[in-house]
Amino acid sequence: MGLIDAMLAGDRRALARTISIVEHGGTDAQLALGKLYRYTGQAHVVGVTGPPGAGKSTLVNELALELRRRSATVAIIAVDPTSPFTGGAILGDRIRMQPLGHDPHIFVRSMATRGQLGGVARATSDVVNVLDAASFSTIIIETVGAGQAEVEIARQAHTTVVVEVPGQGDDVQAIKAGILEIADIFVVNKADREEAGKTQRQLQTMLQLGHTHDPQWSPPILSTVATSGKGVPEVVDALARHRRWLSESGKLDTRERERVRRELFQLVEYLISEQIDQRVPAADQTALLDRIRAHRIDPYSAAKELIQRALDGTS
Amino acid sequence: MGLIDAMLAGDRRALARTISIVEHGGTDAQLALGKLYRYTGQAHVVGVTGPPGAGKSTLVNELALELRRRSATVAIIAVDPTSPFTGGAILGDRIRMQPLGHDPHIFVRSMATRGQLGGVARATSDVVNVLDAASFSTIIIETVGAGQAEVEIARQAHTTVVVEVPGQGDDVQAIKAGILEIADIFVVNKADREEAGKTQRQLQTMLQLGHTHDPQWSPPILSTVATSGKGVPEVVDALARHRRWLSESGKLDTRERERVRRELFQLVEYLISEQIDQRVPAADQTALLDRIRAHRIDPYSAAKELIQRALDGTS
Repeated sequence: MGLIDAMLAGDRRALARTISIVEHGGTDAQLALGKLYRYTGQAHVVGVTGPPGAGKSTLVNELALELRRRSATVAIIAVDPTSPFTGGAILGDRIRMQPLGHDPHIFVRSMATRGQLGGVARATSDVVNVLDAASFSTIIIETVGAGQAEVEIARQAHTTVVVEVPGQGDDVQAIKAGILEIADIFVVNKADREEAGKTQRQLQTMLQLGHTHDPQWSPPILSTVATSGKGVPEVVDALARHRRWLSESGKLDTRERERVRRELFQLVEYLISEQIDQRVPAADQTALLDRIRAHRIDPYSAAKELIQRALDGTS
Repeated sequence: MGLIDAMLAGDRRALARTISIVEHGGTDAQLALGKLYRYTGQAHVVGVTGPPGAGKSTLVNELALELRRRSATVAIIAVDPTSPFTGGAILGDRIRMQPLGHDPHIFVRSMATRGQLGGVARATSDVVNVLDAASFSTIIIETVGAGQAEVEIARQAHTTVVVEVPGQGDDVQAIKAGILEIADIFVVNKADREEAGKTQRQLQTMLQLGHTHDPQWSPPILSTVATSGKGVPEVVDALARHRRWLSESGKLDTRERERVRRELFQLVEYLISEQIDQRVPAADQTALLDRIRAHRIDPYSAAKELIQRALDGTS
């Protein structure tokens, strides 16, 4: 497949096309990923998450520019798995930020999808592999929205940055969304706001009380004003520090092991449901569902029947 | 199995034990569900969700008491899939509310679990089936926490009540959590607070702007003061009205069809991963993961290998 070779050689159009193929799924995606997988494993994968309006997109752009100054090459994946209400936010912000577009060593890709949570996570993981094979040294996954989606997607990152913003009412958002536990680095953005100190102190208290990601790594709480770039070099320093800690402590190995395991089992599920759709005609699936609804078969027995039929002739 | 017969005959201890078996999973759970499934399909399943501190537990208890006055029998499942920070909330509230415990036609079960999101949803669904077979006419699933978990669990309900509370800052929580779309009924609880009118208006505006669950059902926005019982009969009226609408419009059929399909495919995934754990020794799984991490095999090919091995000798 010339496409993968072209992509590996640095052809940006080939890269964009490979990503589209991979996002689309199916046999072509699996072939492409099979070919490029051996070239992955070099990039530092960074997750950036936080509530809508925290200024994540601006921060991510500033991080990309600072990383470029330090000779990194940067790919940004902006994922938006939330409801139509917050839908356009990332894309809208991104459009305003043209400067990045002119640097050939920064690549930006938006993934706006309303599909299943699992679908977004799987596609994100596949796209990370493509970008990793294409030799980007840092890959930033930016997500917006509610709870579980962030957790799923952040788990794919080596380093997760949780962005908070002052003055969102009584509680910082991390408590509600349950994302405190996934943070390796906290950033209080819009730190020129009056309540910034209060937000910092709340985070500090929460960290003292709470379960953090890893007892051996104490997440720093940094301040930025992303619109002016203030504090951004310190965040990039912290990213590098965390990555170094991951390697030296052996945690990189542990986390990679966990990540690969999770990915493997997700793919098993994905492939099975693909096989069911290929081998069991839709009419037969419907008939089985009707039998469950008529209470003539229970769901567990029906699931076993479906697996049996999907795999007949495979082994 | 005498246990299931005892449970079907109304024995509460047999019911509690059946639920424990089902929660625990495995072959016993599957046998139990296979036996009792034919008795399900009668209950009205109601989901009640909303942010922490909205007074959901109090409201659910008042709903249960009002339903009892109308001769319904009520089972309550309190699910708490969130982080340890909000962890104890439901259970703590529940303990304070002893009155329910003396009525043999009200059954309360808490499910506090920190497991996988999918695991909670599956267990909840199985427990609903047990309670349905045990002839409870209304089953209330109460959830607390962030976004995706509610959506997953609410999908199992026929009627979903989203509880909001006045004075939570600029936005009502439903926008952030993306749960606007799943609401069949809105309840503004603590409606004696000053900002209640504002919350009502915000919800109204959101409904006018937004995508609702179903274009043919316009979710009512009701007010309650759960601590005094005010407004509770109107919520029960709305539950009955929604259920009637579901039947008469044919939506009950459509939703049941969707629910059963989702459940079937979740069980397929569950059974496959169970089979992998049984047939592929842990050492072999680790060896496969090591090969992926060494980039000697790509994850898709590895997943195919795992499926093959798990199913060898099955068909």
